[in-house]
Amino acid sequence: MPSNALSDFAGRHPVARFIDVSLRGASQVFFQNNPVTGLIVLAAIFWGGYAAGNLDVGLGAILGLVGGTAMAVLLAANRAAFDQGLFGFNGILVGAAVPTFLAHHPLMWAYVVIGAAVSTVVTLAIANVVRTWAVPGSTAPFVITTWLLMLASYSFASIPIAAMGPPALPAVLGAGSQIASDAWFGILAKNISQVYLLENVVTGLLFVIAIAVSSIRGALFAVLGSVVSLIVAVTFGAKASAIGAGLFGFSAVLTAMAVGAVFNQTSIRVTLYAALATVFTVIVQAAMDTALAPLGIPTLTFPYVLTMWLFLLPKADLAPHPHHLPVSNGVLAKTR
Amino acid sequence: MPSNALSDFAGRHPVARFIDVSLRGASQVFFQNNPVTGLIVLAAIFWGGYAAGNLDVGLGAILGLVGGTAMAVLLAANRAAFDQGLFGFNGILVGAAVPTFLAHHPLMWAYVVIGAAVSTVVTLAIANVVRTWAVPGSTAPFVITTWLLMLASYSFASIPIAAMGPPALPAVLGAGSQIASDAWFGILAKNISQVYLLENVVTGLLFVIAIAVSSIRGALFAVLGSVVSLIVAVTFGAKASAIGAGLFGFSAVLTAMAVGAVFNQTSIRVTLYAALATVFTVIVQAAMDTALAPLGIPTLTFPYVLTMWLFLLPKADLAPHPHHLPVSNGVLAKTR
Amino acid sequence: MPSNALSDFAGRHPVARFIDVSLRGASQVFFQNNPVTGLIVLAAIFWGGYAAGNLDVGLGAILGLVGGTAMAVLLAANRAAFDQGLFGFNGILVGAAVPTFLAHHPLMWAYVVIGAAVSTVVTLAIANVVRTWAVPGSTAPFVITTWLLMLASYSFASIPIAAMGPPALPAVLGAGSQIASDAWFGILAKNISQVYLLENVVTGLLFVIAIAVSSIRGALFAVLGSVVSLIVAVTFGAKASAIGAGLFGFSAVLTAMAVGAVFNQTSIRVTLYAALATVFTVIVQAAMDTALAPLGIPTLTFPYVLTMWLFLLPKADLAPHPHHLPVSNGVLAKTR
Repeated sequence: MPSNALSDFAGRHPVARFIDVSLRGASQVFFQNNPVTGLIVLAAIFWGGYAAGNLDVGLGAILGLVGGTAMAVLLAANRAAFDQGLFGFNGILVGAAVPTFLAHHPLMWAYVVIGAAVSTVVTLAIANVVRTWAVPGSTAPFVITTWLLMLASYSFASIPIAAMGPPALPAVLGAGSQIASDAWFGILAKNISQVYLLENVVTGLLFVIAIAVSSIRGALFAVLGSVVSLIVAVTFGAKASAIGAGLFGFSAVLTAMAVGAVFNQTSIRVTLYAALATVFTVIVQAAMDTALAPLGIPTLTFPYVLTMWLFLLPKADLAPHPHHLPVSNGVLAKTR
Repeated sequence: MPSNALSDFAGRHPVARFIDVSLRGASQVFFQNNPVTGLIVLAAIFWGGYAAGNLDVGLGAILGLVGGTAMAVLLAANRAAFDQGLFGFNGILVGAAVPTFLAHHPLMWAYVVIGAAVSTVVTLAIANVVRTWAVPGSTAPFVITTWLLMLASYSFASIPIAAMGPPALPAVLGAGSQIASDAWFGILAKNISQVYLLENVVTGLLFVIAIAVSSIRGALFAVLGSVVSLIVAVTFGAKASAIGAGLFGFSAVLTAMAVGAVFNQTSIRVTLYAALATVFTVIVQAAMDTALAPLGIPTLTFPYVLTMWLFLLPKADLAPHPHHLPVSNGVLAKTR
Repeated sequence: MPSNALSDFAGRHPVARFIDVSLRGASQVFFQNNPVTGLIVLAAIFWGGYAAGNLDVGLGAILGLVGGTAMAVLLAANRAAFDQGLFGFNGILVGAAVPTFLAHHPLMWAYVVIGAAVSTVVTLAIANVVRTWAVPGSTAPFVITTWLLMLASYSFASIPIAAMGPPALPAVLGAGSQIASDAWFGILAKNISQVYLLENVVTGLLFVIAIAVSSIRGALFAVLGSVVSLIVAVTFGAKASAIGAGLFGFSAVLTAMAVGAVFNQTSIRVTLYAALATVFTVIVQAAMDTALAPLGIPTLTFPYVLTMWLFLLPKADLAPHPHHLPVSNGVLAKTR
């Protein structure tokens, strides 16, 4: 396996090891622990940023990934978790998000560095809290850190906003335009590319390939999550432009993977449970769009985080099932 | 006792058992474990819905009750908790709330079914979290599930809103009209009927009778909570129309019962503590009315849930008192 | 030591003991357990209120301090925590805050009394929750209680607002006026006086003296926090009038003390960690200013509480360091 060969090499060279761990971090956003997956993910991010004319997204991702991982070294964080890249995946998301929503400005890079460092602190904090109930922290540290950075940007004249808001009271959505059936395939891919805040069909396809390199089952549930979320969003009459950009799918994709394939052992029963979770993620996405409208900030992956927690927390209360794998300690145990 | 006879019968017939458990669920909103109480509660809900010209509330309540209870069967939830109806009372509230706030529409019923099923998942999730501190989850799962459904309805063109919002920034309340003293009796009853989101004197009186069938003390504290909340709301100058509709009383009624009679052993000391909790619930109700104004969603029973948690959580920290019964595991131990 | 002499005397006279414990409560806002510190703090508050023409702030502080402490007696709260003043410092803050934001009115004093009593209940509740992860509750009970009181005041015609709001959607801050360099010294002092919601240079200096009487290191970190927060707020272009009033500094002052000197053993490593926490507190302050704008309530010390939790929670996850003192049980263990 390429990842093992790379790891063996990495074990002997500190710089190579740091790169190996960072690449694993890039893959952990999709619940994988695989540097090849991480490499394809990074390439897909750069492609998506390049196509959107915003290379800062790719640079921010690299800076956030390295910053988050380096902060874990400085804090002497748990070695086993570190080796799996679990201190890089929130940093890379912070680094991709900041240049997506804020304008090009020198202080924006200070924001990325502070955000990446803090995301590792928050990762450790949330892991400590949620391990009480044996659920993972997942991307909650990214959401918390980035929400605070984005909210603060409204109060900082030197941190100009590029693509966010304006804050507005929620309004009832009227019946809108239909989604053309030939747009469906593109939306299914964008649902996946938006996990990294990018609206790009090629990026979405590369993400599926990246996941499949590490886990065919993971890739399958990502696609299933994308399909279910599209059907539900269209059925309930969500805003066509938001559906078209993949904004009703990215959290659902992560929920389907987490509940159906990563933190439970896949079975028919678990798949049905994951389907209900995926449907509910679309409702939570719509709910958070309403709730955050007055603040003018994006939901990020919070709809996934909330739904994933609600659907993984019951585990300890259910009568034992052979289908139910134990979930172990917080963010640290994702791949054990 | 009728409930025992019914239970004996229910034990031998699966369908009868399901009905028995469902009726207990309807009674658990008022902290009782009694199918006769549940039957009177259901009758009172249908009366209140009929009088308001909205039979969907009664149908939604039945659907939510059955849906929540059935989901617990599918999830093979804890048997002892199931037998007490602890997986039905959040579902019945979701089912009563959805048709209260949303317009008649086929997809509204899909909303009720999804909401009822998810409310049981959330019941298990919250129970797992709050058992850490030996407090009950109570109606928190209803609040969380229904808030998400209601917030989402603003973003879904096919889920039309009937009676909610519009979202608005909070405004300072000016001095308003007085409440006529001959309206007081009706308000005291409406304070209790609003636990199930109904504004109906007969429904309120039937609820008191339903509680008294199972617990005279419980009924007494419900009435005390209603009286205290009315005095406090009038003293602080809350909006007369909201007081008149019973909207400042329903959470206070539940707080008085929970803190004064259900989760503590009643005594003079505990009654004074419950009185402070009841007074504070009115303040929390006013606070949540302000806080949720920009989002255009109702507070539901969150003022009760928050105050109940704040006033039950200290228990472990207080010096031991013979008055203080131990609160045991989460939502599961309500009636132990 | 004066505090010991006072304590010895206090041990023999119930009234003197109550006063001793109350004064320690006033000092605990700055993490000290020292009646002399508390006495200077009270004098500084009265001076600040007098200078601002609002003696109610001083009277409210006394009433809140006594009320919170007395409620702990009534609840028979933990004796060791009581003796350290840990049931007075949230009450004194509630008592100082209510007359700061609300208008002079008889019911305002009812608000202070209810708020002080409830703040002790909430202190016990939060302590019970956060001890799970070995972090202190600190001023979280003050924030929760006062937020609820302030939000409710919008919905109560008989609780008129003096200095708060109006609720407004967040707006992007444009480049504003510069801060004159000769204003810096005054701002550094106001950053510290605002811990008790006062904008007064003398009060700020007296607070530094009060802390130094008990802990030179504590006073040093308070000043460092003030300096760092001013630099960061100016760099990011926060609103000049808010910076000038000390509103970007008070939470940062508390974070610097808590993370750098109180809950960790000071070292170069810990100081750098506290510096990052202090920088981030300024961002959280700006974020909460945005987030609370639609509700028209002040952030209070929440930016400190949130950042302190995020930066203390990781402790259990970090590899053991001799620098890392264990944080023990919740609010109760601050000074053990």
